[in-house]
Amino acid sequence: MEKIKLDISKTACGVSAAEVEALKDDSARANALLYNKQGAGNDFLGWVNLPSSITEAHIEDIKATAASLRGKAEAVVVIGIGGSYLGAKAVLEAMSDSFGLLRKKRTDPIVLFAGQNISEDYAYELMEALKEYSLAVIVISKSGTTTEPAIAFRLFKAEIEKRYGKAEAASRIVAVTDKARGALKTLATNEGYKTFVIPDDVGGRYSVLTPVGLLPLAVAGVDIAAFVKGAQEMERQTGEEVPYEQNLARQYAAARNALYRKGYKTEILASYEPKLQYVSEWWKQLYGESEGKDGKGIFPASVTLTADLHSMGQYIQDGERTLMETVISVEKPAHEVVIEADGENLDGLNFLAGKRIDQVNKMAELGTMLAHVDGGVPNIKISIPAINEYYIGALLYFFEKACGISGYLLGVNPFNQPGVEAYKKNMFALLDKPGYEAESKAIRERLAK
Amino acid sequence: MEKIKLDISKTACGVSAAEVEALKDDSARANALLYNKQGAGNDFLGWVNLPSSITEAHIEDIKATAASLRGKAEAVVVIGIGGSYLGAKAVLEAMSDSFGLLRKKRTDPIVLFAGQNISEDYAYELMEALKEYSLAVIVISKSGTTTEPAIAFRLFKAEIEKRYGKAEAASRIVAVTDKARGALKTLATNEGYKTFVIPDDVGGRYSVLTPVGLLPLAVAGVDIAAFVKGAQEMERQTGEEVPYEQNLARQYAAARNALYRKGYKTEILASYEPKLQYVSEWWKQLYGESEGKDGKGIFPASVTLTADLHSMGQYIQDGERTLMETVISVEKPAHEVVIEADGENLDGLNFLAGKRIDQVNKMAELGTMLAHVDGGVPNIKISIPAINEYYIGALLYFFEKACGISGYLLGVNPFNQPGVEAYKKNMFALLDKPGYEAESKAIRERLAK
Repeated sequence: MEKIKLDISKTACGVSAAEVEALKDDSARANALLYNKQGAGNDFLGWVNLPSSITEAHIEDIKATAASLRGKAEAVVVIGIGGSYLGAKAVLEAMSDSFGLLRKKRTDPIVLFAGQNISEDYAYELMEALKEYSLAVIVISKSGTTTEPAIAFRLFKAEIEKRYGKAEAASRIVAVTDKARGALKTLATNEGYKTFVIPDDVGGRYSVLTPVGLLPLAVAGVDIAAFVKGAQEMERQTGEEVPYEQNLARQYAAARNALYRKGYKTEILASYEPKLQYVSEWWKQLYGESEGKDGKGIFPASVTLTADLHSMGQYIQDGERTLMETVISVEKPAHEVVIEADGENLDGLNFLAGKRIDQVNKMAELGTMLAHVDGGVPNIKISIPAINEYYIGALLYFFEKACGISGYLLGVNPFNQPGVEAYKKNMFALLDKPGYEAESKAIRERLAK
Repeated sequence: MEKIKLDISKTACGVSAAEVEALKDDSARANALLYNKQGAGNDFLGWVNLPSSITEAHIEDIKATAASLRGKAEAVVVIGIGGSYLGAKAVLEAMSDSFGLLRKKRTDPIVLFAGQNISEDYAYELMEALKEYSLAVIVISKSGTTTEPAIAFRLFKAEIEKRYGKAEAASRIVAVTDKARGALKTLATNEGYKTFVIPDDVGGRYSVLTPVGLLPLAVAGVDIAAFVKGAQEMERQTGEEVPYEQNLARQYAAARNALYRKGYKTEILASYEPKLQYVSEWWKQLYGESEGKDGKGIFPASVTLTADLHSMGQYIQDGERTLMETVISVEKPAHEVVIEADGENLDGLNFLAGKRIDQVNKMAELGTMLAHVDGGVPNIKISIPAINEYYIGALLYFFEKACGISGYLLGVNPFNQPGVEAYKKNMFALLDKPGYEAESKAIRERLAK
């Protein structure tokens, strides 16, 4: 198997190699904290050894449930938000034909997402479109009371029970939730839903390798065994004892923290393959939620290239010089399309005739890296050999491990998210949720001013 | 007709009202420069009076061509990049059923985009999926030689000619290009394609109201007359003589520039309707490319809420305090979905029973604004009465006008994009494009070091 590669040498326009290497020992200590559990947030470290702890029996259990849903439903709605949404969404988009929905015959069910917003039009249009498809639901929530997925689940539970009756509905709804407590666990027990467990020590944004990610992916036809295998390999390659020179997670964490300390406050994750767009969205949650606290943290942004060279390219090249860029480079595309010669050559493209499109894409990537570095944007390159389950599994675990290390280098607790509660508290107060009477009164008084 | 509203009062946590109002006169001068053409980039001001200059005959011409393509093709591929892509994409997504592709019967052709990237897998998967659909193409390029769309057009021109023969192909390909010069204009003349003109004085990112945007939208079934009408109304409302107190474009430009001067260097455009996601992408090009130069400019980012409150929410609430947030608020959804009561109420949502989902969304929006302001994130709110052609047309012209004013307030030329050439030059050198021999030699020597 080829390996994922990392090149941090092109950060030299922003930070010296010595300044990066100065974080070598700190990155070792940070990585060690993930294993000895002496750091902040140490009750949420279940993801560290998660890949190697996944058993074949666990995967078979997930696959059996997935097969049952695949046998019953043309469309499976996955209900979840944040970490209960973005992991599955990211891997599913990466592994799917980008125009699969246009195919008139399908072998896999369509997997769609709900409960990741409170848009009435989104809910309506999704429900309407699904009238033509047989249906199943995977509902993902630790508590079962998070507003967005809870509203969506009320809608879809009612729809499925109306269509198939309560007994059959129970075989078309699977819950991924707490092992013992909470509204969704109670409901699942009462109704007889098959359930999978969200471990107590794995936070949402680190949960893609739990059933939160694995079950929807298995339903979509993704090879979850290969996905887990890639993560296992990366777990080995970024272990506590792996030295800095071989430990890509420590190198990435050191480079971006060294840059941050020099004033590079925004990291743009870029890819030249549009189907990796939601890997970037997943990454933004992982890093933004882990590091964005206590008035600090690298602001995570993303672009899809070369499209966004014609939108954000001008800013990246010439705007405020506080940007670093991290590129996910895919070495080999899955398909082959050759540029053909044209008799007239009015467009002047015949110099590319006989070349594969990807050869042009790669030169765009290289040319852009050089241009951005010349423009003062330090560049980090992560190369994956191909977009497949194995390498995506490895890539996501790489980012998780590097994020844990990076958060400790920054001096924050990378495993909490206290700021996410602020809007919820206001929303509940405004909606007069029982128990929020004092807050309701206070917020009304504030708004009346 | 209700009007679009703007609220800049919630920027007070970052900038005083006096500091914003200090830019009142400057914003008048900046707006005047757009009309008297005494500012930088004054050969690209055709967009300023564009809405009011669009004739009914022009709209009818576009609609007739659209009707012809609609009659021939189940799928229409729009080939373009940057401003020749994002305007149509943004409005199309906003105006479409988000799950329209799932519908088994369709009244409108599917409109898809190509040539906005150089991904070999994207090209392959798109071509494969389209084998099941009758086909037409709209190719949009001023020069006809921009690499990304030129490659895509070679592929699709060959495909259409293979399928239908050269004569019929000529009636299935429409070119939007220069009025007289360039590779695409020459080809269109030779082949007998219907053409529409990209005006010389309208840059890509300001071109959505030219045939660049209008033709693809008309093909998709969007009411372009209403879209233009909304823009015309906003042209009137943001005119040179409209005082600051009524001129939303001047207010928005003043507020964001005042914040930028106080250190708020990143603007996050947020919406609670996921179908506005590509309006944000279009906005990012408009502002990023107009302002990101000379080492300055507000960095444009975007989030879709409430989804991203569970990913970027933590950072926005508690990360580096250099963020401002601009919310596009939609007053009324198009559809109605009511939350029903549940006998058991395990999820505790019965306090919402009988409410429309949008009522919850609105309280999330209000609660989030209050939370973010409390967290030190100045808030700007733009309210549109509904998502329809009229208000989207008004909104896009509002952003264009405010961008022109804002760029002049910042002290840059808002109508050039010199930085976009840097990657192209390197790419051509790496690909040994004829005419780049010296650059090829130089870049090879650099890489060999």
